[in-house]
Amino acid sequence: MTTDLPAAHTIRDRWRSVRGPLFIDLYELAMAQVYVRDGIAEQPAQFDQFFRSYPDYGTHQAGFCVSAGLGPFRAWLRELWFDTDTIDALGGLRDSSGGAMFGREFLDWLACPDRFAGLELTAVEEGRVVHPHEPVVSVTGPLAVAQLIETSLLNHLNYATLIATKAARVVQSARGGTVLEFGMRRGPGAGVSDGVRGALIAGCAGTSDVEASIALGCAPKGTHAHSMVQAYLANGGTELDAFRAMARSAPDDCVLLVDTVDTLGSGVPNAITVFDELRAAGHRPGGVRLDSGDLAYFAVQAARQLDAAGHDEAAIVLSSDLDELNIWQILTQVDEEAERIGLDAAGVRRRLAYGVGTRLITSHGDSSLGGVYKLVGLQRDDGDWAPAIKISEDPGKVPIPGPKRLLRLYDRSDTAIVDLIGLPDDDPLAHEVLVTHHPTRAELHSTRDRSTIGRVEPLHVRVDLDAPDEPLELLRERCRADVEHLDVGVRRLVNPHRYHVSLTERLHRLRADLITTTTT
Amino acid sequence: MTTDLPAAHTIRDRWRSVRGPLFIDLYELAMAQVYVRDGIAEQPAQFDQFFRSYPDYGTHQAGFCVSAGLGPFRAWLRELWFDTDTIDALGGLRDSSGGAMFGREFLDWLACPDRFAGLELTAVEEGRVVHPHEPVVSVTGPLAVAQLIETSLLNHLNYATLIATKAARVVQSARGGTVLEFGMRRGPGAGVSDGVRGALIAGCAGTSDVEASIALGCAPKGTHAHSMVQAYLANGGTELDAFRAMARSAPDDCVLLVDTVDTLGSGVPNAITVFDELRAAGHRPGGVRLDSGDLAYFAVQAARQLDAAGHDEAAIVLSSDLDELNIWQILTQVDEEAERIGLDAAGVRRRLAYGVGTRLITSHGDSSLGGVYKLVGLQRDDGDWAPAIKISEDPGKVPIPGPKRLLRLYDRSDTAIVDLIGLPDDDPLAHEVLVTHHPTRAELHSTRDRSTIGRVEPLHVRVDLDAPDEPLELLRERCRADVEHLDVGVRRLVNPHRYHVSLTERLHRLRADLITTTTT
Repeated sequence: MTTDLPAAHTIRDRWRSVRGPLFIDLYELAMAQVYVRDGIAEQPAQFDQFFRSYPDYGTHQAGFCVSAGLGPFRAWLRELWFDTDTIDALGGLRDSSGGAMFGREFLDWLACPDRFAGLELTAVEEGRVVHPHEPVVSVTGPLAVAQLIETSLLNHLNYATLIATKAARVVQSARGGTVLEFGMRRGPGAGVSDGVRGALIAGCAGTSDVEASIALGCAPKGTHAHSMVQAYLANGGTELDAFRAMARSAPDDCVLLVDTVDTLGSGVPNAITVFDELRAAGHRPGGVRLDSGDLAYFAVQAARQLDAAGHDEAAIVLSSDLDELNIWQILTQVDEEAERIGLDAAGVRRRLAYGVGTRLITSHGDSSLGGVYKLVGLQRDDGDWAPAIKISEDPGKVPIPGPKRLLRLYDRSDTAIVDLIGLPDDDPLAHEVLVTHHPTRAELHSTRDRSTIGRVEPLHVRVDLDAPDEPLELLRERCRADVEHLDVGVRRLVNPHRYHVSLTERLHRLRADLITTTTT
Repeated sequence: MTTDLPAAHTIRDRWRSVRGPLFIDLYELAMAQVYVRDGIAEQPAQFDQFFRSYPDYGTHQAGFCVSAGLGPFRAWLRELWFDTDTIDALGGLRDSSGGAMFGREFLDWLACPDRFAGLELTAVEEGRVVHPHEPVVSVTGPLAVAQLIETSLLNHLNYATLIATKAARVVQSARGGTVLEFGMRRGPGAGVSDGVRGALIAGCAGTSDVEASIALGCAPKGTHAHSMVQAYLANGGTELDAFRAMARSAPDDCVLLVDTVDTLGSGVPNAITVFDELRAAGHRPGGVRLDSGDLAYFAVQAARQLDAAGHDEAAIVLSSDLDELNIWQILTQVDEEAERIGLDAAGVRRRLAYGVGTRLITSHGDSSLGGVYKLVGLQRDDGDWAPAIKISEDPGKVPIPGPKRLLRLYDRSDTAIVDLIGLPDDDPLAHEVLVTHHPTRAELHSTRDRSTIGRVEPLHVRVDLDAPDEPLELLRERCRADVEHLDVGVRRLVNPHRYHVSLTERLHRLRADLITTTTT
């Protein structure tokens, strides 16, 4: 499809400017006003964004996450400006006694055009595999300014990462089959835009969402509804009439929904008639869609009928409350059914596509990711960083302020084995034996021989607000490569292996010192 | 707060124009093109939007839903127009063979400025209690046009209704306590706007979402984060310093988060010091927020400390993964704890407020509502309606085309007892005994003596696209009144009574005739 039409740019701009400057929790503004009044608004601060656990779907659990949402957040931040209307709207807010909620001094401070210029972000790139406890985004900048972006950053990353993670699982379960995102109607209102984007990054081949497709430059996907066949029937026509009408309108994208009347007795035979006619006219038949009943059984039977008619390239699209477990179940049954009737199961699998709706776009089983944005430290006048402590919390959670690096270590077969949080000059290959520590439980550590480590990859990059948007294809490839480098046990749908996220020895010691000096 | 500032209108316009004309599934356009090509695009059609079951949260279930989303859908439809950029973007889409996905004839048809003028919508008003199987929105109009709005209608209604339903439950569980919506950071991306609006309709007293608050004309709510106290601590100050800074900045809205250091040993005593100072300066202290630990225990202990210091009007705001079950549990424990230490439990309950985040905005336990939009029938040239049938389905699901009415019957004590779907001239009070039928299971019917019926209320109204937006207060009052008219058993959190939705005798007979003539 053509993506550089000027019209497509208009759609894209409209699509991504969903959130305004007031897409923010009130308390960010309340705290920023406190800091401005108290003269500490500009004090350098450091915040980390991370999550503490993988999604847990109950009967199954994620063993990795796919980071998404950074691109749209970057676009939001790039355009973030408290224009006159916004300032006026804030100025109109009243407190409980009828006074102004926000004073002139604060509003003037907020309205400064380059207010957000002082922020520096480092982050794991969008589309990459990420794990609990590792800083996905680190923000350094003026205390009040860095605080103000909290809600939007979390909102952008939490849901998109949740859906990208679910989509990566669904794509895995399809074992090479095409996964299409069909969740718009049951998705969370305007949030589907964020979810669809995450799903596409994590490997969905397309979406039914026309706006998102055009904005992201990927062809929208779809078939037709039962209502189309019903309309022809109500007018005294037949299912075949409806199919022929669709074929006339879309001869090169003709996917026919075959379960309105009788899937194997009418739908597939009528589709074959139309496919014969399409082929005779020089077109390539698209395929059939099954939306009800025993999908695995119908898929195998439909494959047999299509094969017998010489349409072995026609796709078979399955839909109806699919998710990673359903698809796994369907493929297991397809293997058995195909073998029973002497059909090549691999051939059936290859032609299958999955229209995945509700359960993907709502992350069925675990519908939120608990990403947080924590103050790590404040820089004092002397340049030293003071850590930010929540005294009521476990000392094991005391954050370590100041620059750090996040490294991914691969073994000799290029499988990712551990993500390592360290000091900027930490080199995991410096010693014969690498000692690493559990990120929150100080008593747990492990050792690794240097010879087992194949390569070391830094995961953090500086976020350049002015760089152009990363194209979808790049994000997809980044995700695909990262998932491929995971151990199969980590990718397992149920009870996955736990991937290691660790601290370096030096960082661990620094934290132990910090805990001693700050909590005693 | 001031809501008619011009600036607030700007925010509102920006806020509600999230979805463009291409917020649509591809297959709606594909089908519309078929209908335009085949000359049936303008044939009068009828579609019904409804859902088949209440949300089921696993351990507990909804016994009613609160309809939401109609207002924003109406705003979307009012502004729906396929402008030149949109048409050009569609014209740029390519099919599998590289040809144009949409032909000129169809695009010209679509671009017609009054393309959507022919639609007529009747609907249950937003904010009302609704139940499975009843048409919440009925759409009549040209087949292709009525088909095109399917995805947006479902998207607008499904999620907003899901969240309004959850919020109504949370508000019920709070037994008069204030419920605040705090879910922005964990909510579904840009979709939080839709969820927040639904939550406010269903009785949440406010939200932390500043954009939504200003757009809807209700004061935003919030306190401060742990990070604020941590910042003062990191700078060598104290929790009390942080609290005093907040009090200076917001003397009339001062709600202090008391669990960063030690809730009862430091947080509440420091808050009391600040409240004493505020009161001495002529201000009314706001309250404290508890965000961790045993919330019921801390709430009672904090109430005791505040009472002893003479601050019995200070609110106690609870937060931390709350939902209807947690709040129920907390209130039960508050009763026990208060009694144990000789405190008036009702007094504690009255001052409690609940900041409800993740579990409300994601409808924890059931994260989607399965609302559907079904073709009911097509009008033939002779004016008669032909029903739209999915032959593979249960005959009990055959829809009845043509105008119908939806009535709510109340008993003599003004409790809603049944929602009745009937023909336009059906009068439930016409006979001594009212016979009603199950909406999908033909063998089930029941009778009611006319004398038991207090009043009959039509639920459907004509949707006027040009009418102004309904103010939030009106929607809230509508919801509040409807929930109050429900039987307490229907409102029960766990295993609620099943509310009756039935067909009138005449409609039931008409359907029986239809089934005989169309499926045999």
